[in-house]
Amino acid sequence: MSFQLTILGACASLPAVGKFTTCQYLTIQNFHFLIDCGEGAQHLLRKWKLPTLRLDAVFISHLHGDHYLGLSGLISSMNLHKRRKELHLFAPRGLDEIITLQMKHSKTHLGFPLHFHATEQENKIIYENRALTAETIPLQHRIECCGFLFKEKTKPRPINKDSLQEGMIPHIPKLKEGCDIADASGKIIYRNEDFTLPPRPSYSYAFCSDTLFQPQLAQPLHGVDMLYHEATFIHADEKYAAQTYHSTTVQAAQLAREAQAKKLIIGHYSSRYKALDDWAAEAKAIFPSTFIAEEGAVFSPVA
Amino acid sequence: MSFQLTILGACASLPAVGKFTTCQYLTIQNFHFLIDCGEGAQHLLRKWKLPTLRLDAVFISHLHGDHYLGLSGLISSMNLHKRRKELHLFAPRGLDEIITLQMKHSKTHLGFPLHFHATEQENKIIYENRALTAETIPLQHRIECCGFLFKEKTKPRPINKDSLQEGMIPHIPKLKEGCDIADASGKIIYRNEDFTLPPRPSYSYAFCSDTLFQPQLAQPLHGVDMLYHEATFIHADEKYAAQTYHSTTVQAAQLAREAQAKKLIIGHYSSRYKALDDWAAEAKAIFPSTFIAEEGAVFSPVA
Repeated sequence: MSFQLTILGACASLPAVGKFTTCQYLTIQNFHFLIDCGEGAQHLLRKWKLPTLRLDAVFISHLHGDHYLGLSGLISSMNLHKRRKELHLFAPRGLDEIITLQMKHSKTHLGFPLHFHATEQENKIIYENRALTAETIPLQHRIECCGFLFKEKTKPRPINKDSLQEGMIPHIPKLKEGCDIADASGKIIYRNEDFTLPPRPSYSYAFCSDTLFQPQLAQPLHGVDMLYHEATFIHADEKYAAQTYHSTTVQAAQLAREAQAKKLIIGHYSSRYKALDDWAAEAKAIFPSTFIAEEGAVFSPVA
Repeated sequence: MSFQLTILGACASLPAVGKFTTCQYLTIQNFHFLIDCGEGAQHLLRKWKLPTLRLDAVFISHLHGDHYLGLSGLISSMNLHKRRKELHLFAPRGLDEIITLQMKHSKTHLGFPLHFHATEQENKIIYENRALTAETIPLQHRIECCGFLFKEKTKPRPINKDSLQEGMIPHIPKLKEGCDIADASGKIIYRNEDFTLPPRPSYSYAFCSDTLFQPQLAQPLHGVDMLYHEATFIHADEKYAAQTYHSTTVQAAQLAREAQAKKLIIGHYSSRYKALDDWAAEAKAIFPSTFIAEEGAVFSPVA
């Protein structure tokens, strides 16, 4: 399965002993992404043996410290490890200014290109490669905040090696695209379905960081394979959620149900909740396929 | 013993699994200080059960990330914990700008006064209270960098309760100061040494963060009770120390010997050295009272 999410940190802004703030590592095919980067991210990447230097891009939802304070140390360590590969950074405007100022005062000169891309409070494709797109999901928090939706593109159809014939070879690129192959007269000589196999499904992952409940997201997130949603508070503390522009366990589960998500992962739990099983039980009652974003947990779409 | 140093982090800029960058907690009588504040400091303060909210001041040696990147998260968490007590921050100019920018973008409004004091590359008393002074020690690193020397003032002499007499009571403040008490005619009626006890010695602690070897510090640090000195490299790697403006184990020990320090604590070891006992052995051969700045280790002066 080359679609894999690893949770590095998942607690809300006041970390407890052994708990780290939001940070996730997402691998899609051969592409590697970090989503949010709480303090200690570089430690967690090492702890869980994730290939930091292979990161293609970092996506930061918003500029509360518990979502980005690990970034400067991570960039600095990648530099000391002699990274040369470019890194793309997607974040609200302001993070570029902070990092530039930190590098100025430490007299750090990066040995790799760091490309900053400012996100806006809108739904827009901000990243694309041959395998996937990433788009922003506008959220509603106390400061500008976006989630991210990663969608795999339709995959090439693998050639069925048992059916391989010499004459087919020039037509392989078209067959992989799903086309039938015809001769000059228009007669089909290779029917696609006879010579190719169905590719594995194209998956999607939505990351909904700190936000007030946004029920209208059910439509754009319809059918998402994995949905991470913050659930800072339990249902009984819904008023605190509203006051602080956060969501509850129940709201996260309602969104997963309405969006017909295949799997829900909840995190960003307040440090006031010590028994995470109890905290998650409220969501599971509404959406049974709910999982806790525990540190080190690895999630893949339902096959 | 109300003079106590706890090591929270002590490795050089590339943290290994379970190793944290420079951060120390110093308690002198009822005053609490943080010295440097590497990434993860707030986690380590909790792990070692140190009273974060009692901190009076934070001293930052220089603006390389491994010495201050934990500060913003720590300040933010103190704010969420409703700290009201003022906090003094001593650091090279620039850190105020970084923290102000981070707070602007996160729309954080502190509920306590944060007083920034810019350090300069000079020897100067920068902090003083009834119990102690703290002064800067100019060091030589790739960017502006200061160590810190904490010195207890002479303590009041405790009254010997076995010798307490009613007539003495009005004279107690003067007796505590070490004075003899005379009557109107000038005749000594209470000899200080008969009524007071010697106070515990006044101790000192010098923190020498990242620096090229500075043998001339032996004079200003003469007789220091505890000396922390960086020892990023072993003697065989002395050329890397010179190139990167760092010191070796042997140089740290030579300074401790020349300064006639009572105790040497070495840290900021490069991640290339896996066996810290071997790394420290070089220093111990020159200065036997050498200790490794291991995380969680607590040091007090030799009584």
